[in-house]
Amino acid sequence: MTGVRRVAILAEGQLAPRTAKTAIGVLRYAPYEVVAVVDSTRAGTDAASHVGVGKGVPVVATVDEALALGAEALLVGTAAPGGRIADAFRPHLGRALERGLGVWSGLHERVLSDPLLAAAARRGGATVRELRDPPADLAIGGHRRPRPGARVVLTVGTDAAVGKMTVALELVAALERMRERAVFVPTGQTGIAIAGWGISVDAVVADFIAGAAERMVCDAAERADWVVVEGQGSLAHPGFSGVTLGLLHGASPDMMVLVHDTSRAVLKGFEGEGLPVRALDEAIRMYEDAAAWRHPPDRPRARVVAVALNTSGLPAEAVPGALRDAAARTGIVAGDPIREGAPGADRLARALVGAAVA
Amino acid sequence: MTGVRRVAILAEGQLAPRTAKTAIGVLRYAPYEVVAVVDSTRAGTDAASHVGVGKGVPVVATVDEALALGAEALLVGTAAPGGRIADAFRPHLGRALERGLGVWSGLHERVLSDPLLAAAARRGGATVRELRDPPADLAIGGHRRPRPGARVVLTVGTDAAVGKMTVALELVAALERMRERAVFVPTGQTGIAIAGWGISVDAVVADFIAGAAERMVCDAAERADWVVVEGQGSLAHPGFSGVTLGLLHGASPDMMVLVHDTSRAVLKGFEGEGLPVRALDEAIRMYEDAAAWRHPPDRPRARVVAVALNTSGLPAEAVPGALRDAAARTGIVAGDPIREGAPGADRLARALVGAAVA
Repeated sequence: MTGVRRVAILAEGQLAPRTAKTAIGVLRYAPYEVVAVVDSTRAGTDAASHVGVGKGVPVVATVDEALALGAEALLVGTAAPGGRIADAFRPHLGRALERGLGVWSGLHERVLSDPLLAAAARRGGATVRELRDPPADLAIGGHRRPRPGARVVLTVGTDAAVGKMTVALELVAALERMRERAVFVPTGQTGIAIAGWGISVDAVVADFIAGAAERMVCDAAERADWVVVEGQGSLAHPGFSGVTLGLLHGASPDMMVLVHDTSRAVLKGFEGEGLPVRALDEAIRMYEDAAAWRHPPDRPRARVVAVALNTSGLPAEAVPGALRDAAARTGIVAGDPIREGAPGADRLARALVGAAVA
Repeated sequence: MTGVRRVAILAEGQLAPRTAKTAIGVLRYAPYEVVAVVDSTRAGTDAASHVGVGKGVPVVATVDEALALGAEALLVGTAAPGGRIADAFRPHLGRALERGLGVWSGLHERVLSDPLLAAAARRGGATVRELRDPPADLAIGGHRRPRPGARVVLTVGTDAAVGKMTVALELVAALERMRERAVFVPTGQTGIAIAGWGISVDAVVADFIAGAAERMVCDAAERADWVVVEGQGSLAHPGFSGVTLGLLHGASPDMMVLVHDTSRAVLKGFEGEGLPVRALDEAIRMYEDAAAWRHPPDRPRARVVAVALNTSGLPAEAVPGALRDAAARTGIVAGDPIREGAPGADRLARALVGAAVA
């Protein structure tokens, strides 16, 4: 990502809120310009009309059009569970590589493992950056501590894909508005695509989840007083909970922010099983208990100090009531850093600073 | 492992209880013959004099001697945290491969990633079986269930390396003595080396821990009424807890057996940090809470129904008292399937059958 200033996002057939999670994060937060989204099924429209962010970014049908707009790399903008490359993406990826356009992918499936794509890359002299490729020298976690004085915050969730990365980024921005030195620690493909560094903790060999998180936290603590770590999955998610706990124990936060999507009654992907999302107070107990397991029993518990609600599924007039209800149910501060904007994020950040002082 | 009947174990410099975990498990349980242990620092002795099992198995100095004794494969018999190949092992591995002897390794580091060993394998026409190599087609967990009627048991631990695999194997033997159809599900390198199948859940890409466990459990439930799953790590272990929870949620046991080493006061590897092992009743609550998270809140909780004590560090006269104390503290059955032998294992197995009927 070094030096690249103009990127196109591939989201063929999937430029929608539920499927284009990476595209949305990058459109909202990336420090580089997004020149186009490639999705032939929505060509000729504006990205914002589909996903609410990316106003002015054209949706185009082909990689060639993205190249004409100045794209220097093509980012895969979706994150399907299981991480396979969608068949509809392959012709676009092949064309990009053929024309020498570098590809950034955060899928589990490696782009160059497809022989046709590998051949295209050879012909075009193009490179692939696998955002989820872990470093080779990871260690077992539990043996390093961050610089004393640095505060570690982890966003945790009642489910996967509720907005933990977004909240972490908004907390960093809010802390910076308060003149605090804060750094965002990316732990997944979208965060890495935005920040340009990080380790995708769901893609490391399982033994090293905590070690990967610990290393990032210790590194980040050298250059900031607030280390805000992007959470992953949920302790209640039957598929992802291992990553969630490994990250929780590896990051070993001083405090947590619980993220909840008010429109999510059943765990994403478990609608058939009818697996209900836990109540906020139950989820808080879950995370605080689990955080304590890896410490001596006499150490003060790491607390969930604020609730970040994702109220994107609510009508505007229902938002204040939802925030009040969340605060009443949990006894802690609630805010929606997107729906409320900076005031919501600032309220959450003040809760962090207040808890650090207390 | 197919077809191999005579194996040598490599444990150069490490044939001791704390370091040769894989060697000990294989010496005790493997269905094939162990013809020798290679450890030049202990050559000329009997394996049992160092690790308590393997009576009559000679310790030899060289791979050539093991070959002369009829070895058809060389198994790496240690499992260092982090999984690097010990430097002292490399000459032996090179010699084995050079002479055409196949190598089985459960380390994270791949044998053939060492160019010298790869060259030796080419010259000798030898193959390496990486016991921890995961299948390529794993799925995210949470979407499959085992055959109704099959009971799933998971061994869980107050720490890593306390005997969870051993207890699982002894429970299967005890259930079989009761004429029950039981199967052992190996989830780590030693279990795989013994059983000849399985997935090392700590070596899969982190997103697939639960999916790997679920797949093994569902497969095993097709051929047995009792599926006894080898646990990994501990929920309280700062480095391994992610694997532990992923396995717990993927296996989704009907009941659990808690394994505890009475000589372990501080978590293994965390002596410096002084991280105490949790009390039995605390550990039970931890596992029962965590097991419940992935189910609807109204589902009956999976219970820890027995405590398996590893009393190998106690004098014989202290064992009955330790078992009584454990039972009194937890209110459930306690036994040591190794120290007590079959009566201890049978007591634990009866607790399983009793809980299934209740």
